[in-house]
Order: sequence, then structure tokens, then C-alpha cells
Amino acid sequence: MALIVQKYGGTSVGSPERIRNVAQRLLEAQREDNDVVAVISAMAGVTDNLIKLARETSPQPTDREFDVLLSTGERAATALVAMAVNALGGRAISLTGAEAGVLTDRIHTKAKIANINPRLIEELLGDGYIVVVAGFQGQTPEGETTTLGRGGSDLSAIALAGALGADACQIFTDVDGVFSCDPRIVPEAMKMEEIAYDELLEMAGAGSKVMQSRAVEFAKKFGVPFEVRSSFKSAPGTVAKEEAANMEDVVIRGISVERKQAKVTLDDVPDTPGAASRIFSAIATANILVDVIVQSASDRNTTDISFTIHQDDLARAEELLTPVVQQIGASRVSSHGGMAKLSVVGIGMRSHSGVAARLFECLGEGAINIELISTSEIKITVVIAEKDAERAAQLTHETFGLARSGVAQGPVR
Amino acid sequence: MALIVQKYGGTSVGSPERIRNVAQRLLEAQREDNDVVAVISAMAGVTDNLIKLARETSPQPTDREFDVLLSTGERAATALVAMAVNALGGRAISLTGAEAGVLTDRIHTKAKIANINPRLIEELLGDGYIVVVAGFQGQTPEGETTTLGRGGSDLSAIALAGALGADACQIFTDVDGVFSCDPRIVPEAMKMEEIAYDELLEMAGAGSKVMQSRAVEFAKKFGVPFEVRSSFKSAPGTVAKEEAANMEDVVIRGISVERKQAKVTLDDVPDTPGAASRIFSAIATANILVDVIVQSASDRNTTDISFTIHQDDLARAEELLTPVVQQIGASRVSSHGGMAKLSVVGIGMRSHSGVAARLFECLGEGAINIELISTSEIKITVVIAEKDAERAAQLTHETFGLARSGVAQGPVR
Repeated sequence: MALIVQKYGGTSVGSPERIRNVAQRLLEAQREDNDVVAVISAMAGVTDNLIKLARETSPQPTDREFDVLLSTGERAATALVAMAVNALGGRAISLTGAEAGVLTDRIHTKAKIANINPRLIEELLGDGYIVVVAGFQGQTPEGETTTLGRGGSDLSAIALAGALGADACQIFTDVDGVFSCDPRIVPEAMKMEEIAYDELLEMAGAGSKVMQSRAVEFAKKFGVPFEVRSSFKSAPGTVAKEEAANMEDVVIRGISVERKQAKVTLDDVPDTPGAASRIFSAIATANILVDVIVQSASDRNTTDISFTIHQDDLARAEELLTPVVQQIGASRVSSHGGMAKLSVVGIGMRSHSGVAARLFECLGEGAINIELISTSEIKITVVIAEKDAERAAQLTHETFGLARSGVAQGPVR
Repeated sequence: MALIVQKYGGTSVGSPERIRNVAQRLLEAQREDNDVVAVISAMAGVTDNLIKLARETSPQPTDREFDVLLSTGERAATALVAMAVNALGGRAISLTGAEAGVLTDRIHTKAKIANINPRLIEELLGDGYIVVVAGFQGQTPEGETTTLGRGGSDLSAIALAGALGADACQIFTDVDGVFSCDPRIVPEAMKMEEIAYDELLEMAGAGSKVMQSRAVEFAKKFGVPFEVRSSFKSAPGTVAKEEAANMEDVVIRGISVERKQAKVTLDDVPDTPGAASRIFSAIATANILVDVIVQSASDRNTTDISFTIHQDDLARAEELLTPVVQQIGASRVSSHGGMAKLSVVGIGMRSHSGVAARLFECLGEGAINIELISTSEIKITVVIAEKDAERAAQLTHETFGLARSGVAQGPVR
């Protein structure tokens, strides 16, 4: 008898028909001699609708009440899934995050899981129930409802799998797994059989939307392997796990592309302590996310600082930076929209030299100009013109032989 | 400092704008030096939508899960109301039925309130909070969520008012109060200043939709006076309370009309034990509600039995009764749709003779034929043709001088 945790996202429970499909899958897993715990998100659209209601009711909704409100979405979905299992002749019971023993800190709307006490789940599993747990939520030590922030249901599933010592954790979603690149950009993109946590983290940070970074980080920290797979097909997906020795044989695991980027450059920033801080504090006040930051080497007493932001934030950023340029004594701020970020990711980079050279060479042969370069231990990111992004991804995908490194399953859509 | 319980129904919290209106009212009540507890229903349409989802997901939803599902509607609404109060500068906190201390029996979907422990409410009131409680729900001794059945939010409010020893319980709704008759039928109908519990019960049983009978019965049992009033106006409504001596001076308090009735008659039913039981058991198996039942006096060994049902149930009832007629040896079953029930209600009937005579006389003068008559201590019901219902109500309203007995406020719509 194995213990399996299955997580279903909002699209997977988006209609009564899909909920019945989920129920069927849960029963199949149980029939294959598994104890089954399901972690469920709110039905697609429900959370957005509740957020809209909150904003229409109050300009700044109270965090505590916001959590009470949002938590109802998952709670309703778990009840529907449990009903559907029962209607098919199974025995299921729904639990809130609190009932499932998910204890969090007191930071409403983005609580962190502090501890999990899965006593009730274990008891119900022992009684033969399929246990359907509301994802995305927990409770404080005082019993107040909290939510874990967007994508928190993945986190719930992985944390429960860890606490229960589950034999498998399956994240069911609307894609077939993690691909070597977005198949809409590179039709030859392959579904990976496996990926190291760190690679998935870098892919997520670089724009791949399969999993939230927080959930992957949690899985890495507590060593909980999980599989990302489709809730609409029966094919296996991609297993994320600790890196194994042989995983380094693959130099580049995948490519991420993020469009609609803008590059902002401040010229001749005085090379004094605090200058960079003034710049990024100004941006941070408007909650604008800054990504690639590059400071060019300086042999004068000034330096140039460039960074990328989302194109939609560009006007606001320019507005905020204009006074800062004067205050710190830089010469000017310039910016360009219409950019894209392309990242190649792979733990193999650590033991293989020449990856960056091969990437730049391939882009050069394609006459694609590189605006910015940023590297980490297992990732190289280049900022290029958005109009070149698709071609760059295809060239890179081919150069690193990614169409041969995965398992042939065809693109998602 | 007084303690006031205000209940708002689904229409009163049907949109963000209306929720803000409720918040305003709660704050006004607090500003008038009251401790304020709000009991909130789900936003209009939400419960129906959840029920629809459940039925689409499962042909026979599990009762436990059905309660978990439905309870989310009230929970979301309380959070929105609390947010709205906070947005206006007040301090509010939302509680589930369970948190509010509403303990019920274990009968899911139609639980009865067993006990209320309002300790947490009292504590929060002491801290200056407006306490916003989810109506319609409670929990079993084991902590399972239960719902109280349709209209249960009224019950929640009255039970909480009783347990808290509230100085006032106000049921805010989309009508101005209880009227001497439906103003759409009798434009001269008046809003009553007060009504005895028993009168309101008989009005409710006879088709007046202001309050569920269960809530009124609870108020009567525990002596909790309450006021039914409009959430959209500031005028006082109708106070329901124990009957007082002077209330008997009013012979007829109000008139109820229920349309779309059908009359079913079984002729020559053998006057033997068990015959009636066979008839009504057959009807009950289909969950058809039977109302007025009349058995005519018998000087033979047979009797005629008539009763009313909703016209929509007529075809099904005829189908069910056809074999029964044969089994019990009655001669035949006949039925007529297109009927209406008209009831006159008043505790004054107990001390005033001749009410029935005056009613029949007035209908006779209007050439309105009476098909069935049924009486209780404080109510007389006649079944008449539906086409005559409006005229009958107007004649009766005038005959008993109801346009003068209330307080002039004009009709609701």
C-alpha cells in the first residue's frame, strides 16, 4: 500500500464535468492500492471573482477578511470533489486546510507554512477515505484562517506529501509536463522526463509558468520529489527531484522566453555607495519588479547601470527615476521597450565549459544582437529584441540539441 | 449601552454597493451607542448557484459535503461585510456559525440549533468590534459544519439575539414589514406596527413569505421579539412579539392569499381506519405538500376527503392516487386546478364571534363560491377559484376594516 498525494489546479476542477473526471482519477489511484490524498484549488475564475468583489466592496480589503473570503473558493471545490467521488460509489471526505493540520504564521494573504500535523488525514486514510484537502490555506496558532498566496495550492500539496511521507506527489495541471521550451515558440520542444529542483527554479524565475518558485523551493528544502502532469491525459509528466549524478550529462535542460520586457539604463552613475540603492528603492516604492540588473565595469569614477522591467511598468519607472537621476548626479536615464529575455538553464553548465560561448555564437550567426547578459551558476540570460525572440529560441533549442534530450511526446497544444 | 442584532438577507447584501449600505447601517447602530451583532445571508443568487453546481456534479450530493459547500456562501458574505465596515473606518470581524458558538444536532442540511455559546461574540463586543456572523450555519458537537435549511439565517439571528439577551433583533429584508395583505393584490394594504407570533405563524403558513415559520416558532418558544424592516429605507417595520391584551381588540390582523392551488377530492372513501393514511402516504412518497384537508361528516359508511396541493404537483398526485382509489375501495378521484387559498388571521378571533359568518357573507355578496373551508383557533381559510382571488382579498380587506388598522406607510412596491 503506497500513499499518493494528487493536486488538481483550478482548470482541472473548472466545471462539474471536470470535477467528475478528477473523482474518477482519484478512485483509479485508490483502486491501484494507494491511500489517496487530493489537494484542490478553487474552480477556475472563482478566486479572481472573489478578489474583484473584495475590491469593489472596499478600496483596501482587511487582510484577515480577505483570507476568510478567498478560502471559501477552495472549500467549495473540495466539497464538490468529495461529492463526485461519493457519487461514483467511493468514500471521500473534504477537509479545510485547518482541519488537515496546516499550521501557518500570522502573515495573512501570504502566510508561510510553519508546521503540518496530519493526524486527522492519517486517521481518515486508515478508515479507507479519499481525503480531499483545500489547498492554498491554513490556520494560525489562534485558529484564524490564512492563505498562502497565489499558487499556494502547489505548496499545500508538496508540504502535505512531505509531512505524510507520501510515496508520490502528483501536480495535475493543464500542461503535459515541463518542456524544453514553450511549444508555442519552438514546435520541436520536448517534454522532459525529469528535472532538478534548481533547474525548475531557474526556469520558473525566467518566465516558465508551470510551477510557482515557492512551491519548488519548499520541495527542494524538504526533499519532496513531485511530478507535473496533465489532468486531461494519462501520459506521465515531468518528475522534479534532487539532482542525480547523471543529470549533469545534460548540459542545457531547457530554455525560457519572457516577452514584453523593457530595458532601462542610467548613464554615468557616480561610483559611490548608496547610488544603486536610491535607484532601486525608487522603483520598489511602486511595486515594480526588477529582473536582470547589470552594472558595467567602471574605470572612471562613474558606472552605467541597466536593468529590465515589464514593459507595462516602463512609464511609471521613467517618472520615478527622473528626479533620482538628478539627485544622484547621473547624466541621464534612457529606456527601450520591445525587449525579451531568453534564458538557457541546466545544472550541466557547472561541469561543462563553453556554454556561454556556444550561446553567443549561435545568436551571432543568427544576427541577433545581445543587449544585456546576466549569468548564474546554472543559467545564462540574454536580453534581446522581442521581434528576435522566437527565432533566437529556435536557434538555441537546435544548437543545444534539446529536441533529442527529452522523451518524444509532442507539444502540449 | 444596548445590544442589537441585525440580520441582513441575500438581497440586502446582493452587490458591493448594497454591502457598503449594510456597513453604513451597522456603523450608525454602533454610533447610537449600541453593541452590534450582524447576521448575514449569502449574496442573492450564490446559494442557488452552489446548489446547481452540486446537482450538476452529483445526482445525490452527500449531505455533509452539501453543508460544507453551502456554508461558503454566508462565509464569503460576512468577510465582505466586515471589510466594508473597516473601509468606512469601523472595526468589524467576521465569524462562522461555529466560531459564533452555534451548536446544532447532526442532521445535515436541516440541522436544529441545540445550544448557543456566545462567549467569543461577547468578548469581541467588549473589545468594540462589530461582530459579523454567518447565518444559516452551525456545527455539530464533533465540529462538522451544518446548515439550518432554507431561511435559516432568520433563525440564526433570533437564536443569537435570545442567547445574547439582545435588546432588539431587527430582520432587514426587501419588504417594509408585514402587511395586512400583499399590496400587489390589495393596494390599500397597510404595514402593521405589531403582530403576535401566532398571527405571523399563521400568515406564513398561509403563503405570506416574509418569514420562515421555523424562525417565528423559535422566537415564540424563547420569547425573542423581533422587527421585520426594510434594508433600503429608514422607516420602522413590524414588530413581532408575544400577544398583549390589547392585541385582541383587532379581530383580523391580516389576509394571506396563495395562488396556483389545486383541489383533489376522493369520493366515497370507506369509513375505516387506515384509509386516510393510505391516501396521504402515497402523496408523501413524492414529497408533495398537502395543505387544507377536509373530511366531510359521514352518515353512511363512506366519507369524502378533499385536500389542496400546489397545482404543479397535480399530475403526479393523480398518478399516485389512481391505484390507491382502487385499493381502498373509494369510488373515484377528481381534481380541479386554478384554485386559490384565502386566509384571514387574527388572535382577536378567539374573543370575537361571528368572524366566519362575516367572511362568508362578504364573499357571498361578491358571488364568490367557496370550495373548501378549514379553520383553526386564529385563522379561517377558504379555497376559491383563482380568478376570484384578487377581488375576494379586496372585499375581505375592506369588510374587516384593515386599511384603517395599520399605520399608513403605503405599499411596498
